[in-house]
Order: sequence, then C-alpha cells, then structure tokens
Amino acid sequence: MTKELDEIKEQLEKHFEEGTGLNDLSPADLAEHLKVLKRHDEDEYANYLEKLDSQSLGEVAIEMPDHMLKDLIQNVPNDKIAKAIEELESDDATDLLQYIEDIDEDKAKELFCSLELDSQKEISKLINYAENEAGAYMQTELFSAKLDEKLSSVISRFRVMKKLGEIENIFQLFVVDKNGILCYAIPLEDLIVYDFDLNLENIVKDGGVEKYKPHAATDTDDISEVATMVKDFDLSAIAVVNKAGVLLGRITTDDIHDFLEESATEQIYNLAGVDDEAEEEDTLFKAGRARAVWLFINLITALISASIIGLFDKTIEAYVALAILMPIVASMGGNTGTQALAVTVRKLATHEIDFSDVKRVIFKEVSIAFINGLIFATLMGIIAYIWFGVSLLGVVIAISMVINLFCAGFFGTLIPLVLKKFSIDPAVGSSVLLTTVTDTVGFFSFLGLAKWILL
Amino acid sequence: MTKELDEIKEQLEKHFEEGTGLNDLSPADLAEHLKVLKRHDEDEYANYLEKLDSQSLGEVAIEMPDHMLKDLIQNVPNDKIAKAIEELESDDATDLLQYIEDIDEDKAKELFCSLELDSQKEISKLINYAENEAGAYMQTELFSAKLDEKLSSVISRFRVMKKLGEIENIFQLFVVDKNGILCYAIPLEDLIVYDFDLNLENIVKDGGVEKYKPHAATDTDDISEVATMVKDFDLSAIAVVNKAGVLLGRITTDDIHDFLEESATEQIYNLAGVDDEAEEEDTLFKAGRARAVWLFINLITALISASIIGLFDKTIEAYVALAILMPIVASMGGNTGTQALAVTVRKLATHEIDFSDVKRVIFKEVSIAFINGLIFATLMGIIAYIWFGVSLLGVVIAISMVINLFCAGFFGTLIPLVLKKFSIDPAVGSSVLLTTVTDTVGFFSFLGLAKWILL
Repeated sequence: MTKELDEIKEQLEKHFEEGTGLNDLSPADLAEHLKVLKRHDEDEYANYLEKLDSQSLGEVAIEMPDHMLKDLIQNVPNDKIAKAIEELESDDATDLLQYIEDIDEDKAKELFCSLELDSQKEISKLINYAENEAGAYMQTELFSAKLDEKLSSVISRFRVMKKLGEIENIFQLFVVDKNGILCYAIPLEDLIVYDFDLNLENIVKDGGVEKYKPHAATDTDDISEVATMVKDFDLSAIAVVNKAGVLLGRITTDDIHDFLEESATEQIYNLAGVDDEAEEEDTLFKAGRARAVWLFINLITALISASIIGLFDKTIEAYVALAILMPIVASMGGNTGTQALAVTVRKLATHEIDFSDVKRVIFKEVSIAFINGLIFATLMGIIAYIWFGVSLLGVVIAISMVINLFCAGFFGTLIPLVLKKFSIDPAVGSSVLLTTVTDTVGFFSFLGLAKWILL
Repeated sequence: MTKELDEIKEQLEKHFEEGTGLNDLSPADLAEHLKVLKRHDEDEYANYLEKLDSQSLGEVAIEMPDHMLKDLIQNVPNDKIAKAIEELESDDATDLLQYIEDIDEDKAKELFCSLELDSQKEISKLINYAENEAGAYMQTELFSAKLDEKLSSVISRFRVMKKLGEIENIFQLFVVDKNGILCYAIPLEDLIVYDFDLNLENIVKDGGVEKYKPHAATDTDDISEVATMVKDFDLSAIAVVNKAGVLLGRITTDDIHDFLEESATEQIYNLAGVDDEAEEEDTLFKAGRARAVWLFINLITALISASIIGLFDKTIEAYVALAILMPIVASMGGNTGTQALAVTVRKLATHEIDFSDVKRVIFKEVSIAFINGLIFATLMGIIAYIWFGVSLLGVVIAISMVINLFCAGFFGTLIPLVLKKFSIDPAVGSSVLLTTVTDTVGFFSFLGLAKWILL
C-alpha cells in the first residue's frame, strides 16, 4: 500500500511540475489518485486538491464519486468552485451542477447564483432536458457564421473567441441563415485551404452544396439514436437543432464515447441485477443494497419455482432420480434463454433490430433454441436412460427439455421486446423474468410428465 | 413485407438521387437494406449494387455479413473491387482485404496484386498487426510536417493532398523531426488563426510547447488501453508511433467508437455463452452451433451438480422438502455470483481496476455477498421453518446459503481476475465456471448439512 501511495504521489508531483504532455494524468486518473490519497492521507489529499487550477478542478470534480464531491463542496471556497464551473464546457458545467444539486440543493443554488449571467442562461436551458435526450449531451459553445460572411472576418472572430477561451475542440464551422437555422457544416480542414478573401457562399458552392449538408440531431432525439448516427457516419461532432431547425449546440465525440461506455456498462450490470449508479459509489452500502433488491426479487421467483416442485412431492418420493435430474432441465433452459436474451437486448441497444423485425427475430431465436433443444434432449434422454436404467425416464426428460428450451428461446426474445415496447429498459429485470419462466416451465413439464408417464 | 420492401426501395432511390446530406443512408444502412433486398428480390439487389460508386462500394462491403461479401466478390468485376479498396482509408482497406481472404484466399491475392504499389505497401504493413494491437486500428493517411516549415507551404501541400483525395477527416497537423520522430500535434483550429507566413517553430513557441505535446500510442499497445486514453483525454484522434517514437499513423474516433461498441457486445455475448462473430452471420447454423458448444459445456457442469445431488439420494427420499428447497440455494448463489462477476468483468474491460487492486476488489465483493448472504439466509431460514415446520431445516438452509453466497462473491470476483491473469478474455466461460461452483457448493453444503443435522 505504501508503495502504491508513493507511486501515486510521484505521479501527481510529475503532473503538476510538467503540466500537460505525454506524462500527464487525465481528469479520471487525477480523481482516482485523489480518492486513494484521501483514504490514506487526508493532509496530502487536501494539499493536492489545493494545487488544482480552476480548469482541472471542474474536470476532476465531474469524475469524483459522490462522497468525494460532497467533501469537496464543503472544503473548497464557493468562488473557486464557481470559477471551476465557468471554465467547463456548458454540458459538463450543467452535469457538475446537477451532481452538486443531488448532494446539497442549497449549495447548488448558491453556486448557480454566483455564476456569470451568460453561464446561468446556458445552464438553465440545458438542465431542462431529460437524461436520455440529445440536449442533455449538448454543449452550447460552437463556431457559427452567416452565409454571406467573408472567411477572413470569420477567422478573425474565431481568433478572438479562442483567445478568450470561449470555444475549444472545434472541428467545423456551422453556417446558419438569418433566423439561426442550420444550413451547412464546413470542416476546418476545408476552410483552411481556401483563400480567406472568399465569402462562405463561394466556398459552399465550390465544395458542392451536397458535401456540406450537415448531419444534425434534434435536441429531443434519443441519445442512443444520435450515437448510432455519429458512429454510422463517422462524425467528429454533430450539430443539435430544435424542431424548427435552429442551431442550438453540438455534441462532440467525447460525449458519445462516454455514452457508449456508460450504456454498455448499464446493460451488462442490469442483465446481472446490478445497479450501475449505486456501484459508482465508493461505499459498500449503496451497492450492496441495490444488489439486495434484485436478490430479493430472485428469492421470490425461486420460491415460486420451489412451490411448483412442491406440487410433485409424492412423485419425487417415488422416484428420487427426478430430484437429481430436474436441475439439469432448468439449467439448460436458463442458459438457452439467456443466449437469446443477451442477443436481443444488445441488438435493441445498438439499433440493429427494431419492431419491424420482431417476427424475423423471434423466428430466428426460437429456431436456434428449438434445434439445440432437440439435440440436447436426445443426448440427455440417452444419458438419463443409461444412468438410471429407466427408458421412460429418458423420454420424460427429453420431452421436457424440448418444451423448456423452446419456451426459453421464445421468452428470451419476447421479454426484452415487450419491455422495450413499454419503454422500459430491456436489460432491467429481464434476466429474473426469464429465469422464472425457464425454472417454472422446466420443473413443471419435467415433474408433470414424470407423474403422468412414470407413475 | 412488401410494404417494408417498398420503403427500402424508396429510401435507396432517394439516396442515389440526392447523394449525401440529411436524407442519406450510412454504409451500415445501405448494407442492411441490400441484405433485405437480396433476400426478396435478387434482380433489384443486383441493380442497386451496380449503382454504388467505388467509394461507397468499399464502405458498404465492410459492413456486409460473410455470405453477402462472398456473393459480391463473385459477381462484381475485380477491377471495381480493387478500386473500391483503393478508395478506402488504409485501415479499412486492410480490414476488407482480410475479410475477403477469410472467404477466398486466391481472390484476395489477385485483388492485392491489382492494387497500386503504395496501397500494397501500406496494407502489407498493417496486416501484420495482431487483432488487439493499436496498429491494426491505425490508418497511415495523415498530415505531417517538419518543425522548420512555413505554415503557408504546409497548407499548400495540404491543399494538394486533399485535392488528390489522399487524406480526409484531418483534425491536427503532426510535427516530426528529421528522423520522423513525432514532436508535436497542432490542432487545425489553432493553425487556422495564425499568420500563414510564420513557420511551425514560431507557432509552437507562441502556443506553448506543453500545449502541443502530443498524446500518442505505440503501435503494439493494446487497443483497449488506447481507447481508454482517447476517452480520458477527450481526443479527436491519436497519433500512433513505433517504439522509437517514429510517427506511423493515427487512430480516429470512429475506430474507437467501433471498438467500444464491438467490445461491449463481445462482453455481453460472452457472459451469456454467445459467440459475437458467429452471430453476425445471417445463417442460423453458425450462430446455433456456437451456442450449442456453450450449452454442451453447461450440460456437463449440470451433470456434475446432478451427481452431487445423487450422492444424497437417500437423504432426499427421507426428506422430500430438501428437493423442493435445494434449487433456491443454488439460484441465490448463482445470482450473487453473477453480480460480482459482471462488475469485475466490466471494470477490468474499462481499466477501472487492475491487478494492484485485487485485494480491495475481492474484499469489497466478498463483503457485499457475505452481508447479503446473512440477510437472505435469515429470511430463507424463517420461510423454510414456517413452510415445513421443521426448525432444523431452517438452520440447514440458512447455513448453506451463507456458505454458498460467500463462495459466490469470492469466485465471481476471482474467476475473471484469474482468466485475465492468464490472458484469457475474462468474459469467456466465466459464467459457466461460476455456475459450476455455486451449484456444486449450494447442493453439497445444503444436502450435506441436512444429512448431518437432520438425519
């Protein structure tokens, strides 16, 4: 541990000495290092926190788990935090203020009031978007011009804005009409090769009107659709407009990255009955409690399956082999269903399938499950016969496996589709629902058939 | 179906009439539409395939599943395919040639030989990288200059390269020394505001040497680490250098997007026992076969658990309640383990944890599992007592649940860490291994304790 601490201190020293460059630490690294420091050496932690300039402070604060952010807003003076918020791009500033609001509403209000009027306006606009809307991921800082402007005057304006630190990470110039409606997007790589005496209209004509037609998202679009668009068209940034086509802001690829990674984590966690937000906290309690909720739901479904078994207690007493074999039927069903479920959840998330494909998707999944059901039913029928020497037992387990794997394929596909149809995240709770089906059908078909055929 | 077909034809018509712009289709959309067309109307399909220019043909071909690509290389003349490969960026050209090689080695050789010498050289370099190396994701097309060049001459060169279509999606100029070693990366947004009579050295000095120090990946770096770097530093593109620091190429964010999405899909699929590459095919057979392999492995582990139950057949005959309750112990263990497993697999993939954190991660996961184990063991003990009226049965199930959930947390964390240590994808097979542990421990502890305490 001391070795790790020393290493961290050394890295932090280097970072603060050398500034940006090959050896520097990302905001995420800084937050991580500060987290470890805080655990072991509060003084050193406070010392390095002090060293962060307002730019870095904001970027690091966004990456902090709640308990560290809470500590930060209690110990760092308001004016320094306000300055840090100002330095962030508008989307990040809004996020940070929202995180602070979740912890301490009054503090967030205080901070908001101490911001410049412009920032207040921007944040007020952005804060109203729902979590999954494109607007929530958009930054209002962008570089735009009118069609009749001369390139040289556009560049002069750009130079001033850059000097003032108003914009950064600019890849294209958005061209708007007099009503602010987005008309074109011209990449900087195209602008830089033109004669600066030309006006934008000439440039658009020369390059070809089609070429500069912009890809744009509407502010209320679902961010997952925007991410798909950015990915499919290999965009470096995408314009965001309102329903009337007025340019409001832009979404940069770093936000798309964050979205892709976070939503994949969310899917994997939700499929496993884990809450992604609770896991981010550093405390065991929140994560443990969120997991306990899913375990509780699972306990209830397990009790339902158990009560199905309970219906057949006399059958099991007569044939104890049934107790030995029944978990196999349930387990194979669960696995087959999970395969169909994972594929459906993921393809829905990446927009590879939608409701127009429902029949084809269900047909495909059920076919695979049914064919594998036939194969493994035959195999397991033979094994059961050899193991217990009762041919009818082999028949019973084979039939029940075909039934259960067929249902597994069907419900593994249907459950996420239905959840999606009701606008519920298809990854949430679908595993538990599916297991309930495969366990219930598995135990009921196996024990029911056994009672009917064997006794 | 006809309605869907008509819609697709209409969209394709629009695309080919209007060219790029708001209504256009991405290469992925085009491939998807062509796939549906091919299924229902071979003539129309051939007709639209014909209409693709060589630029689009290459981009669409990359998105095609194997059987369509196979059809394409059989029906489209070699020179048109070769031209399509030439038009792609070097990383995509290499990928496409590799896909073709997987289908028809001779055809790939023919195509390779008909490429221009420059393209041949570039592809030969890129094709040698392993799938997970940064080099495999890199394109060799980039914009670089020497430190003593005048900005105006750099821009003139850039203008010519753009006219020739040699480079696109350029966001920064890489500055190299006389040995080709990467020194600086200057964003276009900075270049465009400088006086073109300055030379690059002045610009770097004016902007600040620290500011232009480039982030770079080594060509043999693992792509997942590069993706984390791009994400953490919000980069729009990252330079790739060799071990000596010589600039080789760059990786753009679209490749990082693809990587993030593909690796998330791979993790979700692998956790569920699904092979991501087999699923991409349009045929049921390959996907079904790959899934059958995992079901077979699961059958073997289920047989192992069943044979554990078989050891206690006399105990179950004496107490049929055991058969009713035993799946609950196994199911709760499986779920608890899956929670720990999903969190560990995902955090390893996103580099949130590494081997230096092993103790802390295991401690956290085991603690959560153990505490939840205590809670649900108590609850289930009471339920079992009320259900069957045997207090010792409640004690037995409670103890076995604590044991099983503790093991579930421990092995759910340990299994992916060990797989990773041996350089095996932590998502592959870990679910099956885990279920084997939780089923075996669950059945053995529950039935063993029952035999010991109840009989």
